[in-house]
Amino acid sequence: MSSPHELRIRVRYSETDQMGVVHHASYLIYLEEGRTELMRSLGVEYEEVERSGFAMGVRKLDVRYRGSARYGDEILCRTRITQLRGASIRYGYEIVRAGTEELLLTGSVETVSLELETMRPAPLPQGIRDAIAAAID
Amino acid sequence: MSSPHELRIRVRYSETDQMGVVHHASYLIYLEEGRTELMRSLGVEYEEVERSGFAMGVRKLDVRYRGSARYGDEILCRTRITQLRGASIRYGYEIVRAGTEELLLTGSVETVSLELETMRPAPLPQGIRDAIAAAID
Amino acid sequence: MSSPHELRIRVRYSETDQMGVVHHASYLIYLEEGRTELMRSLGVEYEEVERSGFAMGVRKLDVRYRGSARYGDEILCRTRITQLRGASIRYGYEIVRAGTEELLLTGSVETVSLELETMRPAPLPQGIRDAIAAAID
Amino acid sequence: MSSPHELRIRVRYSETDQMGVVHHASYLIYLEEGRTELMRSLGVEYEEVERSGFAMGVRKLDVRYRGSARYGDEILCRTRITQLRGASIRYGYEIVRAGTEELLLTGSVETVSLELETMRPAPLPQGIRDAIAAAID
Repeated sequence: MSSPHELRIRVRYSETDQMGVVHHASYLIYLEEGRTELMRSLGVEYEEVERSGFAMGVRKLDVRYRGSARYGDEILCRTRITQLRGASIRYGYEIVRAGTEELLLTGSVETVSLELETMRPAPLPQGIRDAIAAAID
Repeated sequence: MSSPHELRIRVRYSETDQMGVVHHASYLIYLEEGRTELMRSLGVEYEEVERSGFAMGVRKLDVRYRGSARYGDEILCRTRITQLRGASIRYGYEIVRAGTEELLLTGSVETVSLELETMRPAPLPQGIRDAIAAAID
Repeated sequence: MSSPHELRIRVRYSETDQMGVVHHASYLIYLEEGRTELMRSLGVEYEEVERSGFAMGVRKLDVRYRGSARYGDEILCRTRITQLRGASIRYGYEIVRAGTEELLLTGSVETVSLELETMRPAPLPQGIRDAIAAAID
Repeated sequence: MSSPHELRIRVRYSETDQMGVVHHASYLIYLEEGRTELMRSLGVEYEEVERSGFAMGVRKLDVRYRGSARYGDEILCRTRITQLRGASIRYGYEIVRAGTEELLLTGSVETVSLELETMRPAPLPQGIRDAIAAAID
């Protein structure tokens, strides 16, 4: 298994809640940034995807919270592409605290490519598919 | 001076931060809902504004925080239109805690109407202007 | 099966993204409000839970997006408690568009009660457990 | 006038709205990160401030939007401390698009230091005040 893409993120104050830890919904933003940056590392800029008439909508989330990030922490979001099938891409995730490697989250997210005009599922252009296929574990 | 539009909002958990109170940026969402609902009460639905090719962008914020809302609180967002000039609308605000009337925020927001295609300032359609003009203090 | 708790929510402008629909992370806020209001309907106010030294952390998300809510839509978040076991509560969800009943999301969320001081799992006080147990399907 | 602290930020997808640009409330998060990182550069970590029993609440916002950031843009948030008086600190801001230097926002934010236990204004500890005083323009 090749190594995952790794994105370092500093937790923002606004991402915490009154429990004193990062709010659970804030992690979805980290996951989104993780796949965006993985794509960018493959030469696929998401802003280009939309300009070419497509969008990647989230279809499925499966997330397990295993620890709590706190304000000021640096975390590492590790993203892999685990499946590419028709219009859908599945990403596998792990978030750890930088330094200690304490596990904070594991999970997967499935996106589906949509034609922006109709919002109906449609396979991505071949060039993008090829770039992604090359990165699948 | 006529009475302002009043919107009752229940503070959401995700709107708090680790200080134990509502994060200062969350109030901007309340102000946005306040002017949206004021407009709706005048027969102007913002989704219609965008469908007719316009947007209302925020150009200027002037906010003074005077107290802290907490999770579970119900607050009242009171919105007035204080000026309509060319493409710009100015809203005056007051947010208080429901029941006690404790003052939490005062301020003003200025929006400018934009042609969606070019994102350049452009006066709103006359029908919308008329509805707004009738509500100015 | 008893009927679920139903919470009516108006989509806010800030909850959309440039795809023109509600951002996928915004739905987690709706789900959180759904379980908060279900609890409130059982006489359990979450602010009381925290004042008594406990928190309910999210441990597991399993969400399937089936449609897209848009700005201005009213949606119904239907929440059931499907399991209470030790310190954990599982909620089952369905979000539909009000009026048309178009299905937008199905899923489940599992929370775990934590002692606020230590952030370790701990069973909820018996009074709260009893209120919840009475509502399980 | 000394040069401001500069923080480079990549716009996140979730920070946009259906107008296709960054939502106006998202900029407040950038401003917050700007002053946090300026403080960090002065040897003051905000997490330490809270651990020593203080918080910095926002008391006043004065923001003028002058352009629109878009998804994928890199922006530069430039932050100065313009005043330190009793418990209050005033920050002056400028946000520009990286590369083109197109001006997107100017403004100021005033924070007040609060004793966390009582949430009442209280001067910051002398060590922190000294670090800040040394950075005032």
